[in-house]
Amino acid sequence: MPVIVILGSGKVGTTMALDLAGDREHSITLVDRDPAALERARERVATLAGQTMEVRQVDLSDGTAFAEAVRGADVVIGALSSRLGFAALARVIESGIPYCDISFMADDALALDQRARELGVTAVVDCGVAPGLSNLLAGHAAIELDPCEVIEIYVGGIPRERHWPFEYKAAFAPSDVIEEYLRPARIVEHGRVVTRDALSEVELIDFDGERFPGVGTLEAFNTDGLRSLARTLNVPFMKEKTLRYPGHASMMRIFRETGLFDERVRDIRGTAVRPLDVTSALLFPLWEYRAGERDLTIMRVSAIGWRAGRRIRIIWELFNEHDAQSGCSSMSRTTAFPATVVARMLLRREVHVPGVLPPEMLARTEGMTATILSELAKKHVIVERREEPAE
Amino acid sequence: MPVIVILGSGKVGTTMALDLAGDREHSITLVDRDPAALERARERVATLAGQTMEVRQVDLSDGTAFAEAVRGADVVIGALSSRLGFAALARVIESGIPYCDISFMADDALALDQRARELGVTAVVDCGVAPGLSNLLAGHAAIELDPCEVIEIYVGGIPRERHWPFEYKAAFAPSDVIEEYLRPARIVEHGRVVTRDALSEVELIDFDGERFPGVGTLEAFNTDGLRSLARTLNVPFMKEKTLRYPGHASMMRIFRETGLFDERVRDIRGTAVRPLDVTSALLFPLWEYRAGERDLTIMRVSAIGWRAGRRIRIIWELFNEHDAQSGCSSMSRTTAFPATVVARMLLRREVHVPGVLPPEMLARTEGMTATILSELAKKHVIVERREEPAE
Repeated sequence: MPVIVILGSGKVGTTMALDLAGDREHSITLVDRDPAALERARERVATLAGQTMEVRQVDLSDGTAFAEAVRGADVVIGALSSRLGFAALARVIESGIPYCDISFMADDALALDQRARELGVTAVVDCGVAPGLSNLLAGHAAIELDPCEVIEIYVGGIPRERHWPFEYKAAFAPSDVIEEYLRPARIVEHGRVVTRDALSEVELIDFDGERFPGVGTLEAFNTDGLRSLARTLNVPFMKEKTLRYPGHASMMRIFRETGLFDERVRDIRGTAVRPLDVTSALLFPLWEYRAGERDLTIMRVSAIGWRAGRRIRIIWELFNEHDAQSGCSSMSRTTAFPATVVARMLLRREVHVPGVLPPEMLARTEGMTATILSELAKKHVIVERREEPAE
Repeated sequence: MPVIVILGSGKVGTTMALDLAGDREHSITLVDRDPAALERARERVATLAGQTMEVRQVDLSDGTAFAEAVRGADVVIGALSSRLGFAALARVIESGIPYCDISFMADDALALDQRARELGVTAVVDCGVAPGLSNLLAGHAAIELDPCEVIEIYVGGIPRERHWPFEYKAAFAPSDVIEEYLRPARIVEHGRVVTRDALSEVELIDFDGERFPGVGTLEAFNTDGLRSLARTLNVPFMKEKTLRYPGHASMMRIFRETGLFDERVRDIRGTAVRPLDVTSALLFPLWEYRAGERDLTIMRVSAIGWRAGRRIRIIWELFNEHDAQSGCSSMSRTTAFPATVVARMLLRREVHVPGVLPPEMLARTEGMTATILSELAKKHVIVERREEPAE
């Protein structure tokens, strides 16, 4: 049986394990530093998928322990915190094992592309929902449309129920959410990368009640989400905006401008304090999904360009809810499944180009987008596509 | 010449000194701990009022120094921080000198009433704009109307220009502002004192553009402003609400509910920190009036009751702006002048009932309200009165 090693036993890593265990075709090992999280994951896989899974307690910040943990794997999947993401990518590449990664990293994964090519390793990075599925669809549009003029990605993970005041819960590490509200957003205009403030250019978007039940109007604002797309695609206008219930951006701007997200140490009555640490300690517990609280994932990727002499707009829409049966959040599932789908392709060598590949590269292979969307649909992560004339 | 000692050389104390110096009938001594503030006040009085004023650097938290500072005064006026207010009141009473005070204090000034009576001292407390002028008008309504059924006080100090995000500057100590947003508001309903959350029951109020130029719609919310009125007046429905530009209460509730105003020490990454200290350090500089920034004071006191068999509503309205000539803020002037007007009455023994007197007590003397309003009008603090039938 092929051996799959999953790095990270958080929500996403556990969802990956559950999904892959369902195949009954792999030997799965889940690796993490936290024995309690490993044990919880092991029990869930045993109960829900009826599979035994190996778990291994490893400090993945230790290079030797890391190499030992992935040794013998046929494919490695990364679902690590942003703190560990880049180092893990580098280490898996050195190990020579195919890798599929959803770990967020502020660093530039493409800096390791050359090394991956040298070693003949395929490492698909940013392979979640956004970045991830969004990249695949953008990459697809850039090929299907000729020329492709505009790509707009709107994406957000939000709670099903809106509770005052934030109407928000963090489906992934809250510190990474705040980081998104601070880091300037790079977008592409007239073929040039330009920078906007995070949380800027707030617009309201109405979501159709039939395709997006219970959603209504959301707001969208700039965040730094294009990542590799800004470099890999030759599309003159591209942006990614984050979706939230209306009012969130304003609130977060107030927090930011007041200095509550400030990372610089200040003297507070003789004590050295980082305001961000204090705000995080207060805010993060309020942003945690509690038992029974459900989330939604909403994404709209829209591309304008020419096909057969007509200017058209292609729109892909994703609406995804918490899964009551597995207890997996929507964000975990929509993030985990693109990676598990691609991991299986790596195992079958359907994806095998050496290098560090963001998902838009996969779209270059004829039929790949359709295959991935069809695999996701089997897991009830459904992307609907439509077209309309563009003016 | 009568000797007036003013305690506190902040904005209000300095405004009091300027006003009284204009009379050229008193010897004025300004007392504070801060030599720079004293010097600034002395220069302003010399320049603007053409008067020399004595200044004395004294630590007023020291009882002996305090007694020395007020010795020989014919009247003492208090314009101290909330930290010093109550102790100063007790000490002036013990000194036997008439006192007029605007210092905010969380403590119950009336607890010293008995002692003031024993010593035959008159101490008018809470003698600013609100508490202060608002108490006088409420006290007047309670006598003029028989029975008086409802008293509603709406009052706020706000900046002339609205700047994102707070659209607010603190005309007095910002820590006292936050304290107002935390302390439960006591209001009177059906003759009983009931408690509401501070910042609750937000309502929007439109202000007539002729009487309140440039104001438009404000919001009003519960704060603990009734103070002595809840006990001294026999009116079954009374409340005081604070006025701000719309949105402020919601923002402050978010800060409060997130824990940013929390006074309890928390462990933040191994360091003991009070969140309120951090928030204050960030927020207070943003709430400071800068050079050239002007403020407004807005107050509406409305009373419903019966007179000559008709149910009527009496409405008093104050609209006051920053004074360009003296450079004194509106809040300083509207707070200082009720006290200086009453201080002159104390000197002339027009007010001489022994005890601790909140201003509603002054309204019991026939003609007193009209006299005080007329004196304030001379200083361009103009209260307009009108009546309308009440349903």
